[in-house]
Amino acid sequence: MQQILEKVAKEATEKTNIKLYSRSVERVLAALQVTSDFWKVVDFADQPVPAASEIIKELMEEGIVKIENDELYLTEKGLELVKELGIPPYIDYTCQACEGRGIPFYANRDWYRTFVQLTKNRPKPVQEYDQGSVTPETTVSRVLFLDSREDLRDKDILVMGAEDDLTGLAVALTGLPRRVLILDIDERAIDFDNRIFQELGIENAEARVFDLRNPFPEEWIGAFDVFITDPPETVKAFKAFIARGIAALKGEGSAGYFGLTLRDSSINRWQQFQRALLNDYGMVITDIIQDFNAYMNWEYHEKTRAAQIAPVRKSPTDIWYRSAWYRIEALPGFKGENIQIKDEVFRELYLDEEGSTT
Amino acid sequence: MQQILEKVAKEATEKTNIKLYSRSVERVLAALQVTSDFWKVVDFADQPVPAASEIIKELMEEGIVKIENDELYLTEKGLELVKELGIPPYIDYTCQACEGRGIPFYANRDWYRTFVQLTKNRPKPVQEYDQGSVTPETTVSRVLFLDSREDLRDKDILVMGAEDDLTGLAVALTGLPRRVLILDIDERAIDFDNRIFQELGIENAEARVFDLRNPFPEEWIGAFDVFITDPPETVKAFKAFIARGIAALKGEGSAGYFGLTLRDSSINRWQQFQRALLNDYGMVITDIIQDFNAYMNWEYHEKTRAAQIAPVRKSPTDIWYRSAWYRIEALPGFKGENIQIKDEVFRELYLDEEGSTT
Repeated sequence: MQQILEKVAKEATEKTNIKLYSRSVERVLAALQVTSDFWKVVDFADQPVPAASEIIKELMEEGIVKIENDELYLTEKGLELVKELGIPPYIDYTCQACEGRGIPFYANRDWYRTFVQLTKNRPKPVQEYDQGSVTPETTVSRVLFLDSREDLRDKDILVMGAEDDLTGLAVALTGLPRRVLILDIDERAIDFDNRIFQELGIENAEARVFDLRNPFPEEWIGAFDVFITDPPETVKAFKAFIARGIAALKGEGSAGYFGLTLRDSSINRWQQFQRALLNDYGMVITDIIQDFNAYMNWEYHEKTRAAQIAPVRKSPTDIWYRSAWYRIEALPGFKGENIQIKDEVFRELYLDEEGSTT
Repeated sequence: MQQILEKVAKEATEKTNIKLYSRSVERVLAALQVTSDFWKVVDFADQPVPAASEIIKELMEEGIVKIENDELYLTEKGLELVKELGIPPYIDYTCQACEGRGIPFYANRDWYRTFVQLTKNRPKPVQEYDQGSVTPETTVSRVLFLDSREDLRDKDILVMGAEDDLTGLAVALTGLPRRVLILDIDERAIDFDNRIFQELGIENAEARVFDLRNPFPEEWIGAFDVFITDPPETVKAFKAFIARGIAALKGEGSAGYFGLTLRDSSINRWQQFQRALLNDYGMVITDIIQDFNAYMNWEYHEKTRAAQIAPVRKSPTDIWYRSAWYRIEALPGFKGENIQIKDEVFRELYLDEEGSTT
């Protein structure tokens, strides 16, 4: 029976070009015991969409999974398999109070209330920029997290992209940093932020349209205590965003924050990312909190590769896309990079074999 | 004013041989704004005891900190300094429901109740083996964590040392793993476990006296889905314990768990540990949850180096020693080591410039 898992992993690896192993198949089978919704399977199994999708297709060929009315079920053979191999159902013990983050978003009710009120009319995410915003609870928890690590008050903070999440805005609204510089390619987010800064008379925060493929001007290099970003999960994009963020850090003890998902990248790629952080950039990882970032569904879902390759036509009905929250810290000898990223490289930033939600 | 921080960092580095920087001093000053208890300063500032101690001594020489009745206070000059440099007070937003772990220990009340009842008469920690037990809430949360990652049910689980925490016992008491093998050098913990297994008729769990300096017998190599350990924080001990644990793993997707503290090792050393995990052993880090493990105070505290080098004579009155909880996963090409560790190396396992609580 164990051989079926290995066979499915092997064939799914060949078809997707993502390195998968028995454990990946087991995780999908664990999820299938508690949900019939494909998007929840991806969420619970922590697999890239193309991987989960192909594993399910292979399991269907083996007669282990069936689809009925766009819902996924284990067949009798499938139920026997999980019993015989002792594959347990997925279990969730996530703390209800803090949604598993370790810090509850209501630890500062004012910050949360202000943020939600001011962002009622926030711009909608667009596919062009790989946008998919996190929940307001996520954004405010990020700010609380920075504060609890002494990375907020009186700090110079750089927010690089993903401002559809309005993390830079939430950071600035606390009034606590020395300076906040928000960069994003999307003019709508930048205008939205600047309008609020103007209305509230916030003078130490500024939002600027900036294409992160371009090098930073000299005055931003070595100028920040903290950077925050949410890079696409391709190796090139990760290195480009993170290395530039690191180049902007002041010195030892400065910190970087970013989200990293297992929905658009495999655990193998995480290893590449981690090696780059430690070996190439001289950083240390101080925190990895799984599922810290919860993303709201995006209206363009049906146009994504994820929707096209999914084994079902049904769209997500609930939050299914999550990412881990990383904190990294600069140590002696750390070094970033501030190079121009070429257009042809950029196209690869978003799309590769593991990514599919853009 | 910033120069004072750099001077203190530099002198404390020279005296302790631990690489410290302005940020380390800032973190001590942040903690000193909310507590006068030295042990809480160590906790909040996340610095090794010798580092925190020496930083405080240097700050005293600068007239920034004073001691009164064994309590630490910022002087007027100190208060001015933190104001001028904008060093904020330490802030704690830890979720009260789950104690910041993301998983509440009461997610399975039966496991908690059973564990607490059965371990009322547990052996007391002894200095000889670097023991200092985690709270029952920590132990049960570890088991819940394993379960939520599909590392408990029907798995072969190896628990290497630190059984004064009774983690192996708690794992076995769930009745869910296929097999539990508990190794510890301390006969008292082993006898305690085996007596309970016998009384309750638990047949798939076994505790054995074993000195982890010795190589594993052939039948344990590649035989486990999961290992759990809590290594001393010297580089040699870390590599010895972790590499042996990895050698015992079955294959790709198998997982290791361990605690790692910043009380007995610096963030620089964490970088060495992480590089070893990624580069030497081919693992990936999936989780780092700070302060997951809370340690109860140990009766032999007054005999430790920590107590001797502390700037105050006062003993800890509350939990101050915490460690992060790491989960690592084996990827293609992972490899462990199963070599004999020599006696002269072993003495270095516990004691070095950063460690002091043993």
